[in-house]
Amino acid sequence: MKMYGNWRSAAAFRVRIALNLKGIACEEIFLDLDAGDQHKPDYLAINPQAAVPALFDGDGPPLTQSLAILDYLEDLHPEPALLPSEPKARARARSLAQVVACDTHPLYVPRVRTYLMSAYDIPKDQMMGFVRHWFETGLKTLETRLANEPGTGRYAQGDAISHADLCLVSLWVGTAIFGVETAPYPTVKRIAEDCLSQEAFAKAHPLRQPGAPA
Amino acid sequence: MKMYGNWRSAAAFRVRIALNLKGIACEEIFLDLDAGDQHKPDYLAINPQAAVPALFDGDGPPLTQSLAILDYLEDLHPEPALLPSEPKARARARSLAQVVACDTHPLYVPRVRTYLMSAYDIPKDQMMGFVRHWFETGLKTLETRLANEPGTGRYAQGDAISHADLCLVSLWVGTAIFGVETAPYPTVKRIAEDCLSQEAFAKAHPLRQPGAPA
Repeated sequence: MKMYGNWRSAAAFRVRIALNLKGIACEEIFLDLDAGDQHKPDYLAINPQAAVPALFDGDGPPLTQSLAILDYLEDLHPEPALLPSEPKARARARSLAQVVACDTHPLYVPRVRTYLMSAYDIPKDQMMGFVRHWFETGLKTLETRLANEPGTGRYAQGDAISHADLCLVSLWVGTAIFGVETAPYPTVKRIAEDCLSQEAFAKAHPLRQPGAPA
Repeated sequence: MKMYGNWRSAAAFRVRIALNLKGIACEEIFLDLDAGDQHKPDYLAINPQAAVPALFDGDGPPLTQSLAILDYLEDLHPEPALLPSEPKARARARSLAQVVACDTHPLYVPRVRTYLMSAYDIPKDQMMGFVRHWFETGLKTLETRLANEPGTGRYAQGDAISHADLCLVSLWVGTAIFGVETAPYPTVKRIAEDCLSQEAFAKAHPLRQPGAPA
Protein backbone atom coordinates (compact mmCIF):
# COMPACT_ATOMS: atom_id res chain seq x y z
CA MET A 1 0.00 0.00 0.00
CA LYS A 2 0.95 3.64 -0.41
CA MET A 3 -0.43 6.52 1.64
CA TYR A 4 -0.21 10.28 1.32
CA GLY A 5 0.11 11.72 4.81
CA ASN A 6 1.80 14.32 6.94
CA TRP A 7 3.49 14.13 10.33
CA ARG A 8 0.98 16.42 12.04
CA SER A 9 -2.24 14.95 10.58
CA ALA A 10 -4.32 13.32 13.30
CA ALA A 11 -6.25 11.48 10.59
CA ALA A 12 -3.09 9.99 9.02
CA PHE A 13 -1.90 9.08 12.54
CA ARG A 14 -5.01 6.93 13.13
CA VAL A 15 -4.47 5.04 9.90
CA ARG A 16 -0.74 4.60 10.61
CA ILE A 17 -1.55 2.96 13.95
CA ALA A 18 -3.97 0.51 12.29
CA LEU A 19 -1.39 -0.38 9.63
CA ASN A 20 1.18 -1.05 12.38
CA LEU A 21 -1.21 -3.13 14.49
CA LYS A 22 -2.20 -5.23 11.48
CA GLY A 23 1.35 -5.51 10.20
CA ILE A 24 0.50 -4.08 6.79
CA ALA A 25 3.41 -2.68 4.80
CA CYS A 26 2.66 0.82 3.57
CA GLU A 27 4.91 3.45 2.07
CA GLU A 28 3.95 6.87 3.41
CA ILE A 29 4.51 9.88 1.19
CA PHE A 30 4.66 13.03 3.29
CA LEU A 31 2.88 15.98 1.69
CA ASP A 32 4.20 19.36 2.76
CA LEU A 33 0.96 20.92 3.97
CA ASP A 34 2.68 24.18 4.97
CA ALA A 35 3.97 24.57 1.43
CA GLY A 36 0.46 23.92 0.09
CA ASP A 37 1.23 20.61 -1.65
CA GLN A 38 -2.34 19.51 -0.92
CA HIS A 39 -3.68 22.26 -3.19
CA LYS A 40 -1.54 21.38 -6.20
CA PRO A 41 -3.37 19.89 -9.23
CA ASP A 42 -1.58 16.54 -8.94
CA TYR A 43 -2.85 16.02 -5.43
CA LEU A 44 -6.31 17.47 -6.06
CA ALA A 45 -6.70 14.79 -8.72
CA ILE A 46 -6.16 12.26 -5.92
CA ASN A 47 -8.28 13.99 -3.30
CA PRO A 48 -10.32 17.06 -4.34
CA GLN A 49 -10.81 17.77 -0.65
CA ALA A 50 -7.11 18.74 -0.41
CA ALA A 51 -6.76 16.61 2.72
CA VAL A 52 -4.73 13.66 3.92
CA PRO A 53 -4.74 10.70 4.23
CA ALA A 54 -5.27 9.19 0.80
CA LEU A 55 -4.44 5.50 0.52
CA PHE A 56 -3.71 3.42 -2.57
CA ASP A 57 -4.08 -0.34 -2.37
CA GLY A 58 -2.97 -1.77 -5.69
CA ASP A 59 -4.87 -0.55 -8.71
CA GLY A 60 -7.97 1.53 -8.45
CA PRO A 61 -8.99 4.86 -7.01
CA PRO A 62 -7.50 6.33 -3.84
CA LEU A 63 -9.29 5.76 -0.58
CA THR A 64 -9.93 8.84 1.54
CA GLN A 65 -11.36 9.75 4.95
CA SER A 66 -9.62 8.12 7.88
CA LEU A 67 -12.61 6.25 9.31
CA ALA A 68 -13.48 4.83 5.88
CA ILE A 69 -9.88 3.69 5.49
CA LEU A 70 -9.92 2.06 8.94
CA ASP A 71 -13.04 0.11 7.96
CA TYR A 72 -11.45 -0.87 4.65
CA LEU A 73 -8.39 -2.22 6.47
CA GLU A 74 -10.78 -4.13 8.76
CA ASP A 75 -12.56 -5.65 5.74
CA LEU A 76 -9.32 -6.68 4.01
CA HIS A 77 -7.15 -7.59 7.00
CA PRO A 78 -9.52 -8.66 9.75
CA GLU A 79 -6.78 -9.77 12.18
CA PRO A 80 -6.15 -8.40 14.73
CA ALA A 81 -9.70 -7.08 14.84
CA LEU A 82 -9.95 -3.38 15.64
CA LEU A 83 -13.72 -3.49 16.12
CA PRO A 84 -15.65 -5.80 18.44
CA SER A 85 -17.90 -8.41 16.81
CA GLU A 86 -20.95 -7.86 19.06
CA PRO A 87 -23.13 -5.23 17.36
CA LYS A 88 -23.77 -2.92 20.32
CA ALA A 89 -20.13 -2.98 21.42
CA ARG A 90 -19.17 -2.36 17.81
CA ALA A 91 -21.54 0.62 17.61
CA ARG A 92 -20.14 2.00 20.88
CA ALA A 93 -16.54 1.77 19.61
CA ARG A 94 -17.59 3.55 16.42
CA SER A 95 -19.53 6.20 18.34
CA LEU A 96 -16.53 7.00 20.58
CA ALA A 97 -14.31 7.17 17.50
CA GLN A 98 -16.78 9.56 15.85
CA VAL A 99 -16.90 11.87 18.88
CA VAL A 100 -13.29 12.59 17.89
CA ALA A 101 -13.32 12.16 14.12
CA CYS A 102 -16.65 13.89 13.38
CA ASP A 103 -17.41 16.28 16.22
CA THR A 104 -14.00 17.38 17.50
CA HIS A 105 -11.05 17.16 15.12
CA PRO A 106 -12.71 18.68 12.00
CA LEU A 107 -13.55 21.83 13.96
CA TYR A 108 -10.02 23.01 14.66
CA VAL A 109 -8.04 21.88 11.61
CA PRO A 110 -5.97 24.57 9.86
CA ARG A 111 -8.50 25.14 7.05
CA VAL A 112 -11.16 26.17 9.58
CA ARG A 113 -8.81 28.42 11.54
CA THR A 114 -7.54 30.05 8.36
CA TYR A 115 -11.08 30.75 7.22
CA LEU A 116 -12.14 32.24 10.56
CA MET A 117 -9.04 34.45 10.80
CA SER A 118 -9.65 35.76 7.31
CA ALA A 119 -13.45 36.12 7.31
CA TYR A 120 -13.79 37.61 10.80
CA ASP A 121 -10.42 39.28 11.20
CA ILE A 122 -9.55 37.19 14.25
CA PRO A 123 -5.89 37.44 15.31
CA LYS A 124 -3.95 34.17 15.23
CA ASP A 125 -3.33 34.08 18.98
CA GLN A 126 -7.06 34.40 19.67
CA MET A 127 -7.72 31.32 17.52
CA MET A 128 -6.10 29.14 20.18
CA GLY A 129 -9.12 29.72 22.42
CA PHE A 130 -11.31 28.20 19.70
CA VAL A 131 -8.99 25.21 19.32
CA ARG A 132 -8.80 24.58 23.05
CA HIS A 133 -12.57 24.93 23.46
CA TRP A 134 -13.23 22.06 21.05
CA PHE A 135 -10.43 19.94 22.45
CA GLU A 136 -11.94 20.39 25.91
CA THR A 137 -15.47 19.70 24.66
CA GLY A 138 -14.36 16.49 22.95
CA LEU A 139 -12.23 15.34 25.88
CA LYS A 140 -15.02 16.06 28.35
CA THR A 141 -17.46 13.97 26.31
CA LEU A 142 -14.97 11.10 26.10
CA GLU A 143 -14.13 11.30 29.82
CA THR A 144 -17.80 11.35 30.89
CA ARG A 145 -18.62 8.39 28.70
CA LEU A 146 -15.53 6.34 29.47
CA ALA A 147 -15.81 6.93 33.22
CA ASN A 148 -19.52 6.08 33.37
CA GLU A 149 -20.42 3.57 30.68
CA PRO A 150 -20.06 -0.10 31.52
CA GLY A 151 -18.49 -0.84 28.13
CA THR A 152 -15.16 0.71 29.11
CA GLY A 153 -12.39 -1.73 30.00
CA ARG A 154 -8.64 -1.60 29.71
CA TYR A 155 -9.36 0.24 26.48
CA ALA A 156 -12.16 2.57 25.41
CA GLN A 157 -14.36 -0.38 24.41
CA GLY A 158 -13.67 -3.47 26.48
CA ASP A 159 -10.24 -5.04 26.74
CA ALA A 160 -9.21 -4.98 23.10
CA ILE A 161 -7.90 -2.06 21.09
CA SER A 162 -10.50 -0.59 18.74
CA HIS A 163 -10.99 2.36 16.41
CA ALA A 164 -12.11 4.28 19.51
CA ASP A 165 -8.59 4.07 20.94
CA LEU A 166 -6.95 5.08 17.68
CA CYS A 167 -9.10 8.20 17.54
CA LEU A 168 -8.72 8.91 21.27
CA VAL A 169 -4.92 8.78 20.99
CA SER A 170 -4.95 10.94 17.84
CA LEU A 171 -6.74 13.63 19.88
CA TRP A 172 -4.66 13.13 23.02
CA VAL A 173 -1.29 13.84 21.45
CA GLY A 174 -2.64 17.26 20.42
CA THR A 175 -3.12 18.35 24.04
CA ALA A 176 0.62 18.97 24.42
CA ILE A 177 0.86 20.77 21.07
CA PHE A 178 -2.09 23.08 21.80
CA GLY A 179 -1.52 23.56 25.54
CA VAL A 180 -4.71 21.82 26.66
CA GLU A 181 -4.83 20.90 30.36
CA THR A 182 -5.15 17.12 30.77
CA ALA A 183 -5.87 16.70 34.50
CA PRO A 184 -9.69 16.73 34.10
CA TYR A 185 -9.57 13.63 31.87
CA PRO A 186 -7.99 10.80 33.93
CA THR A 187 -9.71 7.94 32.11
CA VAL A 188 -8.79 9.29 28.69
CA LYS A 189 -5.23 9.78 29.98
CA ARG A 190 -5.00 6.22 31.35
CA ILE A 191 -6.06 4.71 28.02
CA ALA A 192 -3.95 7.08 25.91
CA GLU A 193 -0.81 6.40 27.94
CA ASP A 194 -1.39 2.64 27.87
CA CYS A 195 -1.74 2.75 24.08
CA LEU A 196 1.24 5.05 23.56
CA SER A 197 3.47 2.72 25.58
CA GLN A 198 2.94 0.15 22.80
CA GLU A 199 5.22 0.12 19.79
CA ALA A 200 2.45 0.15 17.13
CA PHE A 201 1.19 3.44 18.57
CA ALA A 202 4.56 4.91 19.56
CA LYS A 203 6.18 4.51 16.18
CA ALA A 204 3.11 6.05 14.50
CA HIS A 205 3.37 9.16 16.72
CA PRO A 206 3.34 12.44 14.78
CA LEU A 207 6.63 13.58 16.30
CA ARG A 208 8.38 10.45 15.08
CA GLN A 209 7.51 11.07 11.40
CA PRO A 210 9.66 12.78 8.76
CA GLY A 211 9.24 16.53 8.77
CA ALA A 212 8.22 16.77 12.43
CA PRO A 213 9.95 19.31 14.67
CA ALA A 214 12.85 17.83 16.67
CA MET B 1 -36.63 0.79 18.64
CA LYS B 2 -36.89 4.26 20.12
CA MET B 3 -34.93 7.29 18.99
CA TYR B 4 -34.42 10.76 20.41
CA GLY B 5 -34.35 13.20 17.52
CA ASN B 6 -35.44 16.58 16.30
CA TRP B 7 -37.04 17.73 13.06
CA ARG B 8 -34.10 19.90 12.05
CA SER B 9 -31.27 17.48 12.90
CA ALA B 10 -29.47 16.34 9.75
CA ALA B 11 -28.01 13.45 11.75
CA ALA B 12 -31.43 12.21 12.88
CA PHE B 13 -32.67 12.62 9.29
CA ARG B 14 -30.00 10.19 7.99
CA VAL B 15 -31.00 7.58 10.54
CA ARG B 16 -34.71 8.10 9.84
CA ILE B 17 -34.13 7.39 6.14
CA ALA B 18 -32.27 4.15 6.93
CA LEU B 19 -35.06 3.02 9.29
CA ASN B 20 -37.63 3.70 6.55
CA LEU B 21 -35.61 1.93 3.84
CA LYS B 22 -35.14 -1.13 6.05
CA GLY B 23 -38.73 -1.09 7.30
CA ILE B 24 -37.70 -0.93 10.97
CA ALA B 25 -40.37 0.35 13.35
CA CYS B 26 -38.99 3.11 15.54
CA GLU B 27 -40.75 5.58 17.82
CA GLU B 28 -39.10 8.99 17.53
CA ILE B 29 -39.14 11.25 20.57
CA PHE B 30 -38.62 14.84 19.50
CA LEU B 31 -36.35 16.79 21.84
CA ASP B 32 -36.98 20.53 21.85
CA LEU B 33 -33.45 21.72 21.07
CA ASP B 34 -34.48 25.39 21.12
CA ALA B 35 -35.79 24.97 24.65
CA GLY B 36 -32.52 23.28 25.63
CA ASP B 37 -33.94 19.82 26.34
CA GLN B 38 -30.63 18.32 25.20
CA HIS B 39 -28.84 19.97 28.15
CA LYS B 40 -31.21 18.65 30.84
CA PRO B 41 -29.79 16.02 33.24
CA ASP B 42 -32.18 13.31 32.03
CA TYR B 43 -30.92 13.62 28.47
CA LEU B 44 -27.27 14.12 29.39
CA ALA B 45 -27.49 10.75 31.15
CA ILE B 46 -28.43 9.31 27.73
CA ASN B 47 -25.93 11.32 25.68
CA PRO B 48 -23.37 13.47 27.52
CA GLN B 49 -22.65 15.13 24.19
CA ALA B 50 -26.09 16.82 24.36
CA ALA B 51 -26.75 15.84 20.75
CA VAL B 52 -29.26 13.82 18.79
CA PRO B 53 -29.82 11.14 17.62
CA ALA B 54 -29.69 8.61 20.44
CA LEU B 55 -31.21 5.24 19.63
CA PHE B 56 -32.42 2.52 22.00
CA ASP B 57 -32.77 -1.01 20.66
CA GLY B 58 -34.25 -3.13 23.45
CA ASP B 59 -32.21 -3.24 26.64
CA GLY B 60 -28.77 -1.81 26.93
CA PRO B 61 -27.09 1.53 26.50
CA PRO B 62 -28.18 4.13 23.96
CA LEU B 63 -26.44 4.21 20.60
CA THR B 64 -25.16 7.60 19.50
CA GLN B 65 -23.46 9.18 16.46
CA SER B 66 -25.41 8.86 13.22
CA LEU B 67 -22.78 6.96 11.23
CA ALA B 68 -22.31 4.45 14.06
CA ILE B 69 -26.07 3.97 14.20
CA LEU B 70 -26.24 3.46 10.42
CA ASP B 71 -23.58 0.74 10.69
CA TYR B 72 -25.44 -0.85 13.59
CA LEU B 73 -28.65 -1.00 11.54
CA GLU B 74 -26.59 -2.55 8.74
CA ASP B 75 -25.23 -5.22 11.12
CA LEU B 76 -28.64 -6.08 12.55
CA HIS B 77 -30.87 -5.61 9.50
CA PRO B 78 -28.66 -6.25 6.48
CA GLU B 79 -31.51 -6.05 3.91
CA PRO B 80 -31.78 -3.91 1.91
CA ALA B 81 -28.03 -3.31 2.09
CA LEU B 82 -27.06 0.33 2.40
CA LEU B 83 -23.37 -0.35 1.81
CA PRO B 84 -21.86 -2.20 -1.16
CA SER B 85 -20.21 -5.55 -0.44
CA GLU B 86 -17.04 -4.95 -2.51
CA PRO B 87 -14.44 -3.40 -0.16
CA LYS B 88 -13.28 -0.49 -2.34
CA ALA B 89 -16.84 0.47 -3.29
CA ARG B 90 -17.77 0.17 0.38
CA ALA B 91 -14.88 2.44 1.36
CA ARG B 92 -15.89 4.97 -1.28
CA ALA B 93 -19.50 5.07 -0.04
CA ARG B 94 -18.22 5.59 3.49
CA SER B 95 -15.76 8.26 2.37
CA LEU B 96 -18.47 10.25 0.59
CA ALA B 97 -20.71 9.93 3.65
CA GLN B 98 -17.88 11.22 5.83
CA VAL B 99 -17.23 14.24 3.63
CA VAL B 100 -20.66 15.32 4.90
CA ALA B 101 -20.83 13.78 8.38
CA CYS B 102 -17.25 14.55 9.48
CA ASP B 103 -15.97 17.48 7.46
CA THR B 104 -19.06 19.53 6.66
CA HIS B 105 -22.08 19.21 8.94
CA PRO B 106 -20.23 19.38 12.33
CA LEU B 107 -18.74 22.74 11.38
CA TYR B 108 -21.97 24.72 11.16
CA VAL B 109 -24.21 23.13 13.80
CA PRO B 110 -25.79 25.55 16.33
CA ARG B 111 -23.26 24.77 19.10
CA VAL B 112 -20.39 25.96 16.91
CA ARG B 113 -22.20 29.10 15.76
CA THR B 114 -23.23 29.93 19.32
CA TYR B 115 -19.65 29.56 20.52
CA LEU B 116 -18.25 31.75 17.74
CA MET B 117 -20.84 34.48 18.25
CA SER B 118 -20.12 34.56 21.96
CA ALA B 119 -16.31 34.17 21.95
CA TYR B 120 -15.59 36.54 19.06
CA ASP B 121 -18.56 38.87 19.27
CA ILE B 122 -19.73 37.97 15.78
CA PRO B 123 -23.24 39.23 14.93
CA LYS B 124 -25.76 36.50 14.10
CA ASP B 125 -26.29 37.65 10.52
CA GLN B 126 -22.54 37.44 9.85
CA MET B 127 -22.53 33.79 10.96
CA MET B 128 -24.48 32.86 7.83
CA GLY B 129 -21.33 33.48 5.77
CA PHE B 130 -19.56 30.83 7.84
CA VAL B 131 -22.41 28.36 7.39
CA ARG B 132 -22.61 28.92 3.64
CA HIS B 133 -18.83 28.64 3.25
CA TRP B 134 -18.80 25.11 4.69
CA PHE B 135 -21.91 24.10 2.81
CA GLU B 136 -20.25 25.24 -0.42
CA THR B 137 -16.95 23.54 0.47
CA GLY B 138 -18.71 20.24 1.19
CA LEU B 139 -20.94 20.45 -1.88
CA LYS B 140 -17.99 21.32 -4.12
CA THR B 141 -16.06 18.29 -2.86
CA LEU B 142 -19.06 16.04 -3.43
CA GLU B 143 -19.73 17.47 -6.90
CA THR B 144 -16.10 17.13 -8.00
CA ARG B 145 -15.91 13.55 -6.82
CA LEU B 146 -19.33 12.47 -8.07
CA ALA B 147 -18.83 14.07 -11.49
CA ASN B 148 -15.34 12.60 -12.00
CA GLU B 149 -15.03 9.30 -10.20
CA PRO B 150 -16.06 6.17 -12.07
CA GLY B 151 -17.83 4.77 -9.00
CA THR B 152 -20.77 7.16 -9.39
CA GLY B 153 -23.94 5.68 -10.88
CA ARG B 154 -27.60 6.45 -10.46
CA TYR B 155 -26.64 7.06 -6.85
CA ALA B 156 -23.47 8.38 -5.21
CA GLN B 157 -21.91 4.90 -5.19
CA GLY B 158 -23.13 2.75 -8.07
CA ASP B 159 -26.77 2.02 -8.69
CA ALA B 160 -27.87 1.20 -5.17
CA ILE B 161 -28.66 3.61 -2.33
CA SER B 162 -25.91 3.77 0.26
CA HIS B 163 -24.92 5.75 3.35
CA ALA B 164 -23.37 8.23 0.93
CA ASP B 165 -26.81 9.15 -0.41
CA LEU B 166 -28.34 9.43 3.06
CA CYS B 167 -25.62 11.91 4.04
CA LEU B 168 -25.75 13.75 0.70
CA VAL B 169 -29.51 14.27 1.06
CA SER B 170 -29.15 15.35 4.70
CA LEU B 171 -26.83 18.12 3.49
CA TRP B 172 -28.86 18.99 0.40
CA VAL B 173 -32.09 19.84 2.22
CA GLY B 174 -30.14 22.48 4.17
CA THR B 175 -29.35 24.47 1.04
CA ALA B 176 -32.89 25.89 0.96
CA ILE B 177 -32.87 26.62 4.71
CA PHE B 178 -29.52 28.43 4.61
CA GLY B 179 -29.87 30.08 1.20
CA VAL B 180 -27.05 28.19 -0.50
CA GLU B 181 -27.00 28.40 -4.30
CA THR B 182 -27.39 24.93 -5.81
CA ALA B 183 -26.66 25.49 -9.52
CA PRO B 184 -22.92 24.66 -9.25
CA TYR B 185 -23.68 21.13 -8.05
CA PRO B 186 -25.72 19.40 -10.78
CA THR B 187 -24.63 15.85 -9.95
CA VAL B 188 -25.39 16.28 -6.26
CA LYS B 189 -28.73 17.80 -7.25
CA ARG B 190 -29.61 14.93 -9.60
CA ILE B 191 -28.95 12.33 -6.89
CA ALA B 192 -30.64 14.32 -4.12
CA GLU B 193 -33.79 14.89 -6.18
CA ASP B 194 -33.94 11.24 -7.23
CA CYS B 195 -33.69 10.16 -3.59
CA LEU B 196 -36.18 12.73 -2.32
CA SER B 197 -38.74 11.57 -4.88
CA GLN B 198 -38.83 8.24 -3.03
CA GLU B 199 -41.16 7.77 -0.08
CA ALA B 200 -38.52 6.48 2.38
CA PHE B 201 -36.60 9.73 1.96
CA ALA B 202 -39.60 12.05 1.54
CA LYS B 203 -41.37 10.99 4.70
CA ALA B 204 -38.11 11.34 6.67
CA HIS B 205 -37.71 14.96 5.49
CA PRO B 206 -37.10 17.44 8.31
CA LEU B 207 -40.05 19.59 7.29
CA ARG B 208 -42.43 16.63 7.59
CA GLN B 209 -41.55 15.97 11.24
CA PRO B 210 -43.41 17.21 14.34
CA GLY B 211 -42.25 20.65 15.43
CA ALA B 212 -41.12 21.74 11.97
CA PRO B 213 -42.27 25.11 10.63
CA ALA B 214 -45.34 24.87 8.39
